[in-house]
Amino acid sequence: MIERNAVAPKDFWLPWPDVLDHLPFNGEGLLPAIAQQYDSGEVLMLAWMNRAAIEETLASGRVCYWSRSRRRLWRKGETSGQVQHLMELRLDCDGDTVLLLVDQQGPACHTGRQSCFYNAVRADRVEVISDPLIDPQMLYSR
Amino acid sequence: MIERNAVAPKDFWLPWPDVLDHLPFNGEGLLPAIAQQYDSGEVLMLAWMNRAAIEETLASGRVCYWSRSRRRLWRKGETSGQVQHLMELRLDCDGDTVLLLVDQQGPACHTGRQSCFYNAVRADRVEVISDPLIDPQMLYSR
Repeated sequence: MIERNAVAPKDFWLPWPDVLDHLPFNGEGLLPAIAQQYDSGEVLMLAWMNRAAIEETLASGRVCYWSRSRRRLWRKGETSGQVQHLMELRLDCDGDTVLLLVDQQGPACHTGRQSCFYNAVRADRVEVISDPLIDPQMLYSR
Repeated sequence: MIERNAVAPKDFWLPWPDVLDHLPFNGEGLLPAIAQQYDSGEVLMLAWMNRAAIEETLASGRVCYWSRSRRRLWRKGETSGQVQHLMELRLDCDGDTVLLLVDQQGPACHTGRQSCFYNAVRADRVEVISDPLIDPQMLYSR
């Protein structure tokens, strides 16, 4: 369905309910979702969304993922307070990846770092390139 | 293995060969890989990498993915010329997602657009928010 947008000019649109009904969820009913801080452009994390997570996120304006380990909806920040406010939800050309432009409250990463992508491969090393903003024990003890 | 970096301070490092040997590839031997334009911060696309794709990308400095549809290594730009030069490869806290900071030559998307994420969900519509930079027929006819 969303492929119809591929050759369309800017400002063309399709009805969201129809696109949603045809999103190519994987065998587990999930799509990968990238969270990006809307103003700085920092890529914060990648997680997974099912249809219910996408619908709740759009309805509430707070990002909700599907936790593959806990096998339930995961309202980002429900334990840690690290809420993600949704600024815009985008889909790629194939409709099989979600890009979430968010306003992240506090660090996105469970380690207390702003972004989960703090490991850089440089020559024969994997280097830690950022320090935690908050002691992770503080995030999960509230 | 990479979890050892979680509580480490900035500039701590682990040997890359050891981390590579323990990356948590999925059941298909793949990790999702986000490509981000290194200077503008624009998220360009999401694709997949197996171990060989990661090794080739680091060795050559040109991004190589695993094409799930063609079931072979896919050197980005091999047909279209839309090469991605690698600036840095990063891993997230769990080591199960790759972030590629790249310098994208030409548009990243097969539709001729700079980014694949040109579909924005706004109210009850999915709107096209960017025009192609190049006619996609030009990209694949060279």
